[in-house]
Amino acid sequence: MTQTLADLQTPALVVDTEALEANLAAMADRWPGATLRPHVKAHKTTALAHRQAAHGHPGFTCATIREVEGMVAAGLGQDLLLANEVLDTRRLGTLVDRGARVTVAVDSPETVAAAAAGGVREVLVDVNVGLPRCGTAPTEAGALADAARARGLQVRGVMGYEGHLQALPDAAERARLTEGCMALLLAAHADVGGEIVSGGGTGTSAMNPWVTEMQAGSYALMDSVYAAAGVGYAQALHVLGTAVSVAPPRGEMPGYAVADVGLKALGMDHGNPTIPGCPGASGATGGGHVWFCSDEHVTFAPAADAAPVRVGDRVLVVPAHVDPTVALHERMHLVRGDEVLDTWAVDLRGW
Amino acid sequence: MTQTLADLQTPALVVDTEALEANLAAMADRWPGATLRPHVKAHKTTALAHRQAAHGHPGFTCATIREVEGMVAAGLGQDLLLANEVLDTRRLGTLVDRGARVTVAVDSPETVAAAAAGGVREVLVDVNVGLPRCGTAPTEAGALADAARARGLQVRGVMGYEGHLQALPDAAERARLTEGCMALLLAAHADVGGEIVSGGGTGTSAMNPWVTEMQAGSYALMDSVYAAAGVGYAQALHVLGTAVSVAPPRGEMPGYAVADVGLKALGMDHGNPTIPGCPGASGATGGGHVWFCSDEHVTFAPAADAAPVRVGDRVLVVPAHVDPTVALHERMHLVRGDEVLDTWAVDLRGW
Repeated sequence: MTQTLADLQTPALVVDTEALEANLAAMADRWPGATLRPHVKAHKTTALAHRQAAHGHPGFTCATIREVEGMVAAGLGQDLLLANEVLDTRRLGTLVDRGARVTVAVDSPETVAAAAAGGVREVLVDVNVGLPRCGTAPTEAGALADAARARGLQVRGVMGYEGHLQALPDAAERARLTEGCMALLLAAHADVGGEIVSGGGTGTSAMNPWVTEMQAGSYALMDSVYAAAGVGYAQALHVLGTAVSVAPPRGEMPGYAVADVGLKALGMDHGNPTIPGCPGASGATGGGHVWFCSDEHVTFAPAADAAPVRVGDRVLVVPAHVDPTVALHERMHLVRGDEVLDTWAVDLRGW
Repeated sequence: MTQTLADLQTPALVVDTEALEANLAAMADRWPGATLRPHVKAHKTTALAHRQAAHGHPGFTCATIREVEGMVAAGLGQDLLLANEVLDTRRLGTLVDRGARVTVAVDSPETVAAAAAGGVREVLVDVNVGLPRCGTAPTEAGALADAARARGLQVRGVMGYEGHLQALPDAAERARLTEGCMALLLAAHADVGGEIVSGGGTGTSAMNPWVTEMQAGSYALMDSVYAAAGVGYAQALHVLGTAVSVAPPRGEMPGYAVADVGLKALGMDHGNPTIPGCPGASGATGGGHVWFCSDEHVTFAPAADAAPVRVGDRVLVVPAHVDPTVALHERMHLVRGDEVLDTWAVDLRGW
């Protein structure tokens, strides 16, 4: 029996299947094959990673040990990069012993020692290109590569993430600053050697010709912050909710509605979600202006030009930040219009 | 073999067992027995709810259907209040049919109809006392109660949550405004009838003598926002992390450190976490000033008067908001000093 949006318990992640496939195809066109190393942290879903593999990308980027383990278990362990520093690498070493290819980021003598001690055999030197997070100073990358090789590790090259630029609204400024970051990364690469220069993200994927592999992830599902930056991919992810309470205007208080999509169903670090109206999703209500989120609720003022919201209406909410939103849900539903085509487990959550 | 903090994979929720027990005892002293209906949304952990039951509280407040189901499965279904509106009440009706006592909030003809249709037999009329979220207007509560009784529902009384006041820093102002909210609730109660006036939270639990049952939840584990409001309970919850990268000062750039407690391990709706230093937890590093959080990292400037942070050091992070933080984790570890006494599943997550 065909399941429809009306059958779903809310809140629920719903993915516009056509928008997702169009996003995957557009990025694969720009970054074909191994030049794209999709970042699974943005969706935490091996079924979606299988779709990315079907678009020609053999290797993936991961942010956690659990993501690496899950990708190996799903048969996608051909070439995994854990693009973060790890002190306890025993679980990664176990995967390598069993035949998975796992490369880990290092940025210090301690993380080099941990990689060697845990049985990881391949590393990238993580270079700080301007975001104050992990990464060695560019001028120290060569010495760290030498130290890694002295411990018997294979150094495949460098990575450097211009994360602070990804959502800059001015594309020309974003491009100019990306060039500066990548100049630092290429200088480090000259000292380090190896075949890989890994970096980038959805926000700089159209303006970073310097990396040999692009780590974009958010392009698949998208969120309102990247949409505002005009990166050119379609909003494929919504959180489906139900209007559970509607208050008419009273005196000076305007009317509002409340849907069951709260901050426990949304990544909130980039702020409130948006309710933009719902082209293509019949049965869901029109747009509105979000006032605030509570644990299990979003309070919003319905748009003046939309039909009034009634208790029981479905509401489609766009999260401000896709990565932490997906991490809060057990599953995502693949939809076409009102029809639910498939349900995928968000199976890479946790650590 | 005794497990210690050093054995835990990070990030990990750790709970100071003595602080938790002291918090439970202090609240039970103020609100004994059924006068406290602890809110499980703050911890989503049936093992912790069993501890609250052991302190004398027979009934609980829930925010989601999943929480109600999980509490029943854990043998704690004696008197559960789902303090939110629900349109699809079939899962609740199934629990009632099996012998659980489930009361649900209603604030509209639609939610009354849904309760009756789904097989729920008992309701509270949810009254808007100032927070623009769910709840009927106080003047309409009596009519809604009549409508519910006409549908065969037992109306146990009213609830009204002064959520907008919970974290007000000025306690006198908080008390004054709480009195105004509760005047609205008591007026509605006079029209509705029933034995229950349910409301309140950790922030108003010392200044709300008007409710017959207090819905506090955050008091058990606490967070930095409630601590700043001076509500008088101890910080029992931390997120344990590992320092994975340390950068020395360079030119005008001060030094900083990076730990593996990112925004996917923290509720971010109340802002950044704090790293206050770690009394009583040996082996973890001193305090610091948080700069920002990324998906898997917190970047912070170590306190000038603390020992330098080294790669591999443990770091204890206090989340700004406990409820969504706990919802991101699969388990919490009960600790005493460095010793891990027990591990509880966070088994009420999802919807």
